[in-house]
This record gives sequence, C-alpha cells and structure tokens, in this order.
Amino acid sequence: MKSLTKELWMNVPSRRAFVNITPQVEALVAQSGIQEGLCLVNAMHITASVFINDDEAGLHRDLDRWLEKLAPHAPVSQYEHNNGEDNADAHLKRSLMGREVVVAITGGRLHFGPWEQIFYGEFDGQRRKRVLVKIIGE
Amino acid sequence: MKSLTKELWMNVPSRRAFVNITPQVEALVAQSGIQEGLCLVNAMHITASVFINDDEAGLHRDLDRWLEKLAPHAPVSQYEHNNGEDNADAHLKRSLMGREVVVAITGGRLHFGPWEQIFYGEFDGQRRKRVLVKIIGE
Amino acid sequence: MKSLTKELWMNVPSRRAFVNITPQVEALVAQSGIQEGLCLVNAMHITASVFINDDEAGLHRDLDRWLEKLAPHAPVSQYEHNNGEDNADAHLKRSLMGREVVVAITGGRLHFGPWEQIFYGEFDGQRRKRVLVKIIGE
Repeated sequence: MKSLTKELWMNVPSRRAFVNITPQVEALVAQSGIQEGLCLVNAMHITASVFINDDEAGLHRDLDRWLEKLAPHAPVSQYEHNNGEDNADAHLKRSLMGREVVVAITGGRLHFGPWEQIFYGEFDGQRRKRVLVKIIGE
Repeated sequence: MKSLTKELWMNVPSRRAFVNITPQVEALVAQSGIQEGLCLVNAMHITASVFINDDEAGLHRDLDRWLEKLAPHAPVSQYEHNNGEDNADAHLKRSLMGREVVVAITGGRLHFGPWEQIFYGEFDGQRRKRVLVKIIGE
Repeated sequence: MKSLTKELWMNVPSRRAFVNITPQVEALVAQSGIQEGLCLVNAMHITASVFINDDEAGLHRDLDRWLEKLAPHAPVSQYEHNNGEDNADAHLKRSLMGREVVVAITGGRLHFGPWEQIFYGEFDGQRRKRVLVKIIGE
C-alpha cells in the first residue's frame, strides 16, 4: 500500500467563499503514483467544508443565499457560542455542507462524473486555514 | 491490496425517488473477494445523493416532503442557477442528503447495523445517471 | 494491509445528546499499529450521527436548538413514519448531521486540525446503540 499526505493552505479574503481545489487534488493524485485507491479531502477547521458540486457561479450564489437562510449569521446574539465569537453560523453552515469527500482513484485519476468538482467552502474566512488530502492505494 | 470498480446505471422515471441499491452493492462486495476493507458508494451526478437510512415508505414520504420544504423546487425563478435549467433545488437537496457513503467490509460482507440500507436519492430524474462503487481491501 | 474493527456501545440517558468519542477512537488507532491509513467512524443506527465539530457546550446547545427548528420532534403526527413510532424527526436530524466521518491516520495518529473532535450524535436515545470504527492501512 502506498500513501500521500498533503496539507493545502487556504486564505480567503472574504467571510464566505467557495474555492475550486480540484486542480490541486488532481496534481497530488498524479504525484502519488497511486493507480487504484481512495482520496480523502477534508477541511481541518470546523467552520469550513469540503464538498463536491457544480462549478457554476449562479449556483454558488444560490447556495450562499440558501445557507444564510437556513443558518443566518445575524443577529449574532441568537447563538450561545457567540460569547466573544461571532461565527456560530459558520459551524452550522459547515454541518449542512459536510466536512469531507472521499473520491475513488481509478487508473491513476480521480474517478469523477461529468460535472463533479471539489470545493473548499469557507464560512469564517480572512484567516489562514488548511485542507487535508490523504491518498491511499496501490 | 485488491480493488473493484463498478458504475451502476440508474434511470428513475419520476423527478424524485429513493432507490434501494443495497443488493447490488452487496453482490459487488462478494464479487470482489475482499474480506476486510472499505466500500465507497457515491453519486456521480451533482443532483443526486447516496445515503443510508431505513427502507420504510412512510419515512421516505416524510424525507421527500421535508426536503421540498427546506429546498423548494418552485418558483424556479427564485434561483440564479435556473437560467435555462430548472434543477437548482436538486443541487440543494443533494447537498442536504450527501454525495456518498463509506461502508466497512468485515468478513467479506458490508458491516451494517440492524436497519442500515443504501439508497440512491434522485432529485432530477427521467434521465440516465450513474452511481460509482469502489471497494478496496484484502 | 492491516485492519482493525471495533464496535463501541453507547447508551445515552436522554433523548438527544452529543458525546465526544475522540479518546476511544484514538486508543483504537494506537492499538491497530497502523501508521498511514484511513479511519472510518459511523453510527450503526439510522437515528444517530457521527460528526466532527468543536467540543464547546454553547455550540452544542445551538446545534440542538437549530436541529429542532429544521426538523421538529412535535407534533409527532406530522410525520407518516410515526405510525407506532415517534422518532421520524431523529431520522431527519441524522440526515442533516451525517452518518459517518473518515479521518486520515498519519504517523500513527488521527490527523486533525486544531479543534476537530469526533462526536456521537444521539437523536433517539435511552437505548443501547453502536458506533463502528474501521481502520485500514499499513
């Protein structure tokens, strides 16, 4: 069994954003030399997500508005966690969107459907955070 | 390390449905000959889910109604993604239900609790779509 | 490839609770002797979750209140599943919070960001239930 481990650093200039990290993950799969296996990609922070969806700007605006409706940022006083913090909503938004994805590797490549792209979802940005990529296989 | 890779084709006649795919996944685990490992099952399309829950018709109707309340289909004009499309809600519903499950394989079988069953969740059907099964182990 | 399989028994005295199971999972990783690999932790019951978030009591109260808003328990008659049952909401809450996490193992330890902790999320407690830990790697 072979493995590759890599932390990707993110630094999103806004509070919330979706960043397509598929090219970085694909490059790591190629670098690993693994032909058949699994690739785990996860946010290392609990106010951020990694998820798979379409790379379409209208959809990203819909997602952002929808998350804000289901888990609103303001008023920050509605959350007990916001005691010296203001990011309780980011913990909830991350719960909706998920922490991680596991992607199959087949023939040395990410085994994707036609529109699948991997995104980092930032819900409390303007600071340095990490995404972990762990690949195992042969 | 051994592995098995298989794409299952789905073609759901309605817009939305939940399809129990446990028998197909179990057959692939048996075919793989893998005794100890992990089985990834994921939707290859971004308007569909793979998830684990109970195979109970009342619960499935509850789930469908609940998803429609949290991420309504109509009016389609409420979503920016629906610019020549009408499936933005399907992207949101899939975000709630998740893209994938990872199931342990122990003693050559899916290692399940008493009521766990694997479902394909279709939110924009009436077309051919795929589910990926990737099994690794020994 | 090496593997370790272990079922952890839970028995939560209240209907709903979040239980930090990180120490038990870390002990199993050490026991496995695996240096590089993946650790799957999943609820074996469909009215419970395993998820990763912050171990902060205010946030847990926020999460509980938020889940109750998005998927209310009462009136139980609003759900078709509640035909002799009263736990339909627990199936929905578990859908929001997810069934499982997959955590990387690097250098013989869970590869975590600064605040990541693994929780068992119980939504229909007062009975014995199980969590599965499956570790594979080398």
